[in-house]
Amino acid sequence: MMSNPVEPTKIDDAGSNSNVENPTPAVSAINRRWKREDLLNKGSLFLRGLAFFFSLLSFIIMASNKHGGWKNFDRYSEYRYLLAIAALSVLYTGGQAWRQVLSIWKNNNILEQRISAMLDFFGDQMVAYLLISSTSAAIPLTNNMREGQDNIFTDASASALSMSFFAFLSLALSAMVSGYKLSTQSYI
Amino acid sequence: MMSNPVEPTKIDDAGSNSNVENPTPAVSAINRRWKREDLLNKGSLFLRGLAFFFSLLSFIIMASNKHGGWKNFDRYSEYRYLLAIAALSVLYTGGQAWRQVLSIWKNNNILEQRISAMLDFFGDQMVAYLLISSTSAAIPLTNNMREGQDNIFTDASASALSMSFFAFLSLALSAMVSGYKLSTQSYI
Repeated sequence: MMSNPVEPTKIDDAGSNSNVENPTPAVSAINRRWKREDLLNKGSLFLRGLAFFFSLLSFIIMASNKHGGWKNFDRYSEYRYLLAIAALSVLYTGGQAWRQVLSIWKNNNILEQRISAMLDFFGDQMVAYLLISSTSAAIPLTNNMREGQDNIFTDASASALSMSFFAFLSLALSAMVSGYKLSTQSYI
Repeated sequence: MMSNPVEPTKIDDAGSNSNVENPTPAVSAINRRWKREDLLNKGSLFLRGLAFFFSLLSFIIMASNKHGGWKNFDRYSEYRYLLAIAALSVLYTGGQAWRQVLSIWKNNNILEQRISAMLDFFGDQMVAYLLISSTSAAIPLTNNMREGQDNIFTDASASALSMSFFAFLSLALSAMVSGYKLSTQSYI
């Protein structure tokens, strides 16, 4: 399915010198484009999957971080913010990955391609901004606590923070891939 | 210059029915594209200029925020971080705006168009991530201080924070415009 439509041109144009790697610029450009789009689709699915995994971890670690007294995460607004954004990111990346899986394996596009490219691009960026914001807000609090003492509460907070940061990294990369994918759409 | 190249087609194709608004789809698409690119260029210059202005304000307010004792900004790592990122953002947005002004008014493109579109897109995003990160990191500290007391130090910190946040907003919008501009480049 990937190379069928270009076969005739290939034969007509470059039948005799078939050892030449790129028969015509147009054909090789189309081939390259298909390969690139395939790679980009899988790459962005992988990155979204990673972001989903990391934000789910961050959410679980933070939500279970209750050890009584001052060691409850919900006493600190920074940690509540982190939890809320992690939950949002789980929903967003999960939904997007699910949609992408449907579109790749079942060829079942829920949204029109251009709209979904836009959604990818803006959504990824916004959730990435929220993730880096919540991570940055919680870092000073955790640092201050760990200067005083290290216990299971501060350790769990620190690991939830790192998971959130990894989720941010994956989603920021995914936003850049989405931007590049958007750039390969032709409008005119 | 905007409509010259399409004049002949207009006359040939739609000379009799000149009251029709869009003579041919291709012509109107090209016209629309030119107008859109012009608007996007000016819009992104405006957003970069705003980001430059706000981060410069943030930098100046924070750098002059020294009132002795615990009221020196450089005693707090969050504020030092904010200052450093504001300085970086001033340099980045200033440089980009300068390059854009050269390219619009003197038609003097320092970089190839495709490279500069990429640089815009990735650069804007990264600086926006840094700005939201430094703003978020400094907000809890400022909030905690202002719960205790309001004085010139906490007020100046809060205003530097808001300027930094506005700079982030302008740059995030500019990153989205850059992504859209990237999407109007044709590659194949």
